[in-house]
Amino acid sequence: MAQFRTLPGFREFYPEEFARKSRLLAAWRAVARSYGFCEFEPPVLEQLELFTEKSGEEIKSQLFEFVDKGDRAVAMRPEMTPSLARMVGARAGAIRRPVKWFAIGENYRYERQQKGRLRAFYQYNADILGESSINADAEIISLLVDSLRVFGLDQSHFRVRLGDRTLWVLFLQSMGVDDARMVGVLSVIDKLEKVSREALREMMDAALAGSGVSAAGLIADIETLVQIRSIETLGQFLEQKCPGNPDIPSRIKDWNALIDLLGGLGVDKFISVDMGIVRGLAYYTGFVFEAFQIVGSGRALAGGGRYDNLVGKLGYQPMPAVGFGMGDVTVSDLLELVGKLQSDDFSPQVYVVIGSENLRKEALDVVRRLRAQGVRVDYPLKAAGFGKQFKQADAVGATYAVIVGLDELNAGAVKVKNLRTAHEYTVPISSSDLASEILK
Amino acid sequence: MAQFRTLPGFREFYPEEFARKSRLLAAWRAVARSYGFCEFEPPVLEQLELFTEKSGEEIKSQLFEFVDKGDRAVAMRPEMTPSLARMVGARAGAIRRPVKWFAIGENYRYERQQKGRLRAFYQYNADILGESSINADAEIISLLVDSLRVFGLDQSHFRVRLGDRTLWVLFLQSMGVDDARMVGVLSVIDKLEKVSREALREMMDAALAGSGVSAAGLIADIETLVQIRSIETLGQFLEQKCPGNPDIPSRIKDWNALIDLLGGLGVDKFISVDMGIVRGLAYYTGFVFEAFQIVGSGRALAGGGRYDNLVGKLGYQPMPAVGFGMGDVTVSDLLELVGKLQSDDFSPQVYVVIGSENLRKEALDVVRRLRAQGVRVDYPLKAAGFGKQFKQADAVGATYAVIVGLDELNAGAVKVKNLRTAHEYTVPISSSDLASEILK
Repeated sequence: MAQFRTLPGFREFYPEEFARKSRLLAAWRAVARSYGFCEFEPPVLEQLELFTEKSGEEIKSQLFEFVDKGDRAVAMRPEMTPSLARMVGARAGAIRRPVKWFAIGENYRYERQQKGRLRAFYQYNADILGESSINADAEIISLLVDSLRVFGLDQSHFRVRLGDRTLWVLFLQSMGVDDARMVGVLSVIDKLEKVSREALREMMDAALAGSGVSAAGLIADIETLVQIRSIETLGQFLEQKCPGNPDIPSRIKDWNALIDLLGGLGVDKFISVDMGIVRGLAYYTGFVFEAFQIVGSGRALAGGGRYDNLVGKLGYQPMPAVGFGMGDVTVSDLLELVGKLQSDDFSPQVYVVIGSENLRKEALDVVRRLRAQGVRVDYPLKAAGFGKQFKQADAVGATYAVIVGLDELNAGAVKVKNLRTAHEYTVPISSSDLASEILK
Repeated sequence: MAQFRTLPGFREFYPEEFARKSRLLAAWRAVARSYGFCEFEPPVLEQLELFTEKSGEEIKSQLFEFVDKGDRAVAMRPEMTPSLARMVGARAGAIRRPVKWFAIGENYRYERQQKGRLRAFYQYNADILGESSINADAEIISLLVDSLRVFGLDQSHFRVRLGDRTLWVLFLQSMGVDDARMVGVLSVIDKLEKVSREALREMMDAALAGSGVSAAGLIADIETLVQIRSIETLGQFLEQKCPGNPDIPSRIKDWNALIDLLGGLGVDKFISVDMGIVRGLAYYTGFVFEAFQIVGSGRALAGGGRYDNLVGKLGYQPMPAVGFGMGDVTVSDLLELVGKLQSDDFSPQVYVVIGSENLRKEALDVVRRLRAQGVRVDYPLKAAGFGKQFKQADAVGATYAVIVGLDELNAGAVKVKNLRTAHEYTVPISSSDLASEILK
């Protein structure tokens, strides 16, 4: 006789936990739909190669991957973006653009076990494909902000830090970093806040090896750049560092236009200029952003950016794209911290109390009629005395007890007790609108 | 450059398909909640042994099973019942009874590929644990019926065939079948409708080998039994075959009481007495049932029954249980066949048309205000002429076009066009309730 355990890092939702998740997901869905986004759902299992093609062979060590009974190398999805690109790519000829899609689902990563690191986690993703203009970036960033604001979070709870891979590439090119070393240098910049000065220097030396670029000088400029908090200063610094490069002022114009659009959408006050956000992954190509809580741990809540090359890289017609991902655990933790965590309440509204066991069939008829009117109704499955039934009515969270008893039935009625107010009243059992007469 | 494919038998939901599934799932959730059932969610991946313990080692050949990076034998869930039993069993001491839980989720089976056989399929499960009386059986069967009726299906579309493992066991014991051969004989009866007479005879010979019971005689009785469609006849036949066995009339009483309860719940008219339903699986212990469509292919839509031994078998405190499972594919197919398949409609209600590109920011403000009021709003991310914008408004399924143009703005208004009726009107842009003034 084994006793079984949930696998380490996996989640299971008992009803209370499900009701909390349900509230979160319903709120995200409502916001995404108010933005005109359509929900889709990718498969849980995909060809392994879909993920290694996007992220490199290294990703394998973090995947739940195996060979299936048909000798296919497969993996449980660690994220939904590759599947999104595959699904949109496969119908690129027929699909209306811009593609504004979102998905909410569980992803799986074989993470080394540590506190708070789960191997199964829900993620909410929203993406716009087929539109390269910053109008799409603004729409996605605004959706991200509103997907947090919907819970009552405001500027005192979170900020969105906005960086730009395009500006970094322009700057690094001017500094002499060639294309082959670009992604390596960007990943070092991504680690700026996470590692010591010495470690950073070592990593930068390695990334620049053989290029003739001075790591020390570059790090000094980078440290200045990531401190800048205004577009104007950003422009001045970069134009001074890269004189005569026309792409810099042009990109600064994009920045101003993007902030202007975000102003139109009412979310500019959540945005910080912050070149410290570069997003380590190789596949980002333009504006990148991360939402951080500014209370408690300061953890990242969501992140995303523009990735114009992924669909083409997977073998389909190239298509520009911008999107974000947001996890349910960090958002729930923040909501709990600030006292805004709520649950959906699906408790029965009515508990039907059966006066005596030989009236069960009459009671079931009341149950049936109320349910048919859309009321959530529970009743005892075991014969039980009044006291026990009222206790159970409380335990399941019912608001009304409806007593089907002999005296009441003989008078053509049922007795109702509002369990919150203790108010009692009778309702004619023949009423054609039993629900409204009881729930008043 | 690879082009990627969905794995064979796996499903992905483009927005149109998602909207259909969403409608189905929302209806099931509403019905289950009206019955006072709580939703839970088991993990997608479990210890392999959880499934082999319930179903035997043979199940392995149908599983997506593998050894994870921590050397654990794991499997993607082929069904949710073992996880349910594990979750309830693990908290048996603390959990309120009866446990009325439901779950909707995708399950995975490595089925040999054939038309309509999927390897990933959604299932809706509802179970009552901790209550052994037929009140629980009645509640579950009623929920099953209402979970099909919710779509407008009625007696002309489906029936529930009700069988009874308890009666079969009582009868077979009387006929001389011992406990060791019981499950084998029941699985043969389960195949009655699916195999030829000769095949049946051979299987029965094998199941009875060494028992001294005549396969021919038993098959003749079984064929009579499965033809019976009334409880009275069932009782008469069995009392004649098993004279003096007091358990038979007692069980016939249960049958009458169950049908009576189903009458109280308003679903008795959907039920057929049908001992042909035995459910092959070893773990059923009492009443068993299957819902069949009676139009088109006659396929099974749902099935279930009582399984009082599973929780104990998995190593927990024994707990009686009854439940059903229903698949999304067969139900969707039936709804399509009878013209009752519907989709959720999450189309934007409003499409904001931007009069000229320099008014984009003013247009975004209108977008923002409407979304904040809960309206689903879309707008062009690319600069486009009026004609193209109206075309897009149609394409996304918007009901209203709201035109933000210079003349209108100068007059402090926006122009609204109802795209269904072509009716046009203007609304003051400063209105504090823009949504109601536009959506009228």
